Amino acid sequence: MTDIANRYSENPLLSPKDLKASNENMVIECLLNPGTFEFNGKIGLLVRVAERTVKKDGLVSVPFYNNLGKVEILDFKLDDPKLDSSDARVINYDGVDYLTTISHLRLLFSDDGITFSEADEYAALFGEGEYESYGIEDCRVSKIDDIYYLTYTMVSPNGVGVGLRTTKNWKDFDKKGMIFSPHNKDCAIFEEKINNRFYALHRPSSPELGGNYIWTAESPDGVHWGNHKCIAKTRASKFDSKRLGAGASPIKTKEGWLAIYHGATEQNRYCLGALLLDLYDPSIVIARSEEPIMEPLAEYEKTGFFGNVVFTNGHTVHGDEIKLYYGASDEHVCLATLSIKSILKSLKK
Amino acid sequence: MTDIANRYSENPLLSPKDLKASNENMVIECLLNPGTFEFNGKIGLLVRVAERTVKKDGLVSVPFYNNLGKVEILDFKLDDPKLDSSDARVINYDGVDYLTTISHLRLLFSDDGITFSEADEYAALFGEGEYESYGIEDCRVSKIDDIYYLTYTMVSPNGVGVGLRTTKNWKDFDKKGMIFSPHNKDCAIFEEKINNRFYALHRPSSPELGGNYIWTAESPDGVHWGNHKCIAKTRASKFDSKRLGAGASPIKTKEGWLAIYHGATEQNRYCLGALLLDLYDPSIVIARSEEPIMEPLAEYEKTGFFGNVVFTNGHTVHGDEIKLYYGASDEHVCLATLSIKSILKSLKK
Repeated sequence: MTDIANRYSENPLLSPKDLKASNENMVIECLLNPGTFEFNGKIGLLVRVAERTVKKDGLVSVPFYNNLGKVEILDFKLDDPKLDSSDARVINYDGVDYLTTISHLRLLFSDDGITFSEADEYAALFGEGEYESYGIEDCRVSKIDDIYYLTYTMVSPNGVGVGLRTTKNWKDFDKKGMIFSPHNKDCAIFEEKINNRFYALHRPSSPELGGNYIWTAESPDGVHWGNHKCIAKTRASKFDSKRLGAGASPIKTKEGWLAIYHGATEQNRYCLGALLLDLYDPSIVIARSEEPIMEPLAEYEKTGFFGNVVFTNGHTVHGDEIKLYYGASDEHVCLATLSIKSILKSLKK
Repeated sequence: MTDIANRYSENPLLSPKDLKASNENMVIECLLNPGTFEFNGKIGLLVRVAERTVKKDGLVSVPFYNNLGKVEILDFKLDDPKLDSSDARVINYDGVDYLTTISHLRLLFSDDGITFSEADEYAALFGEGEYESYGIEDCRVSKIDDIYYLTYTMVSPNGVGVGLRTTKNWKDFDKKGMIFSPHNKDCAIFEEKINNRFYALHRPSSPELGGNYIWTAESPDGVHWGNHKCIAKTRASKFDSKRLGAGASPIKTKEGWLAIYHGATEQNRYCLGALLLDLYDPSIVIARSEEPIMEPLAEYEKTGFFGNVVFTNGHTVHGDEIKLYYGASDEHVCLATLSIKSILKSLKK
């Protein structure tokens, strides 16, 4: 192990077998990429649960969420000439794309940050309405005053954008709609206002000029966003050569906002790096990792549903210690601790 | 001629030869896609002027705008192994893309809406800063109260997004930054607030799920935008099968907001269609053209720099008459008139 992350010895914390599928027609394929928060003295995870349908002979079945947030299933005969199922993840029927796997977000709580379990009174969050019919993914949770801001990936035939829901009690949620239009994901709102503005990191993608870069945006209310600025681009021959995107909400330090991000290569190897952003203008980058602060090294990070992936969008911070919750190989939820001082030191090299 | 547009008999109104290049190192390649407005009793056009560098033996030269809005030119030797100039529009040098043609916006005024000329006191608008280094394109002009809102395409290595500048006098401009992050263009702000909110049409593009569709967004201030909704998708086998995008600001009628838009096929044939949107919630589509209201039929629309294109982002409206200014074959500025009643009638078929 050559990176600066200290992995929990009993990783993974959670695997697909540890939870029940959302209903009898579905099978959990992956648990991954938990949003993380603290609430009533407990640590909460909002775990992404990716499910496929139970396999049926001679059929390809695709799930989707209806307007009520309930799963419905479409069955296509394998020999139907209108069906193109050559891609295992996205099938096409009569010109329309469907995903074979869709995600919802499961709420789990823990007293010690290690043993997590579901509680009857906290329901899971499902895709609802036409912008989430193919699921909701990779939620970041930011707390400002007494409100939790949940920014997550909305997936539907309209495209992939960023949705916002807010809550105070994890039972009642206000839906604020799509805050960043397609193609966009990996959005984290800063946990305090700067110059009386909300700030966020987000990751628009370009089919032409540009790429998969990290941008900042400002907002008067957390719902309407503007003044978009590009702060971190891909870098040839480095760990973030193909795409990068923000992790959880940046951590305030004396030296600046510390943002942990993921970077991937053309070979889809996902590592973590860090950005240090100006305290008063987070669109100014003070420093950036030359080498990953964490990379897929453990066996459960190198092999699995989609191997060679460490991906984070959730952590807690106490003193110098970051408890980093992360997805390993797009299949398990894992824990590592990192020292803020060590990350800052690595940025000075 | 089978569409419902009445073309001006002396089209085109303006061609590359009618204006001087922005400096002696540049050549005007195309005049196209004028934003349109009324000011001090005159009709104003904000014409997109696409320029390339003067050709030099053995070199490929690419222009860009520096932070002061001045053109600078980079010369690459044709035999330099780091140069890839296989695409005439976008060359790559050492991993960085450059455009061979960049656009600025030229202000022209007319008393009769037909004869346009430049005036010394109204300067052209150039790309300024790192988000406009490869030019500014296809400006829509919306007037709300006494402020003109200019929404235009910002082009740079960061990607293609929507910029906003405002003005009251066409001499002093306030730069409001990028209001829609990449990949986005074809943005038109509605000319009055609805439910005390600004509304806009915009056109995000997706590299994966989704496509090149028209969306609405809302804003408290015209600068920060949210609640994105998809209102018009591409339609297989129709004139808008590959991409579509809003024209100028929608026209308020008793039956709804009338939005003229462009639609293109896989063969890049650009036509115009119309959408009728709910007066109180423009994200609701009441009607949409099954057939184009205008298509490339005249010789100057069928042949030119990029043939088979009619594209509009500017018009004036008096009574039932729309004076539609448009780009023909991505080379000329032309004029046609359309009757609002005729368009509404075509939507009822």
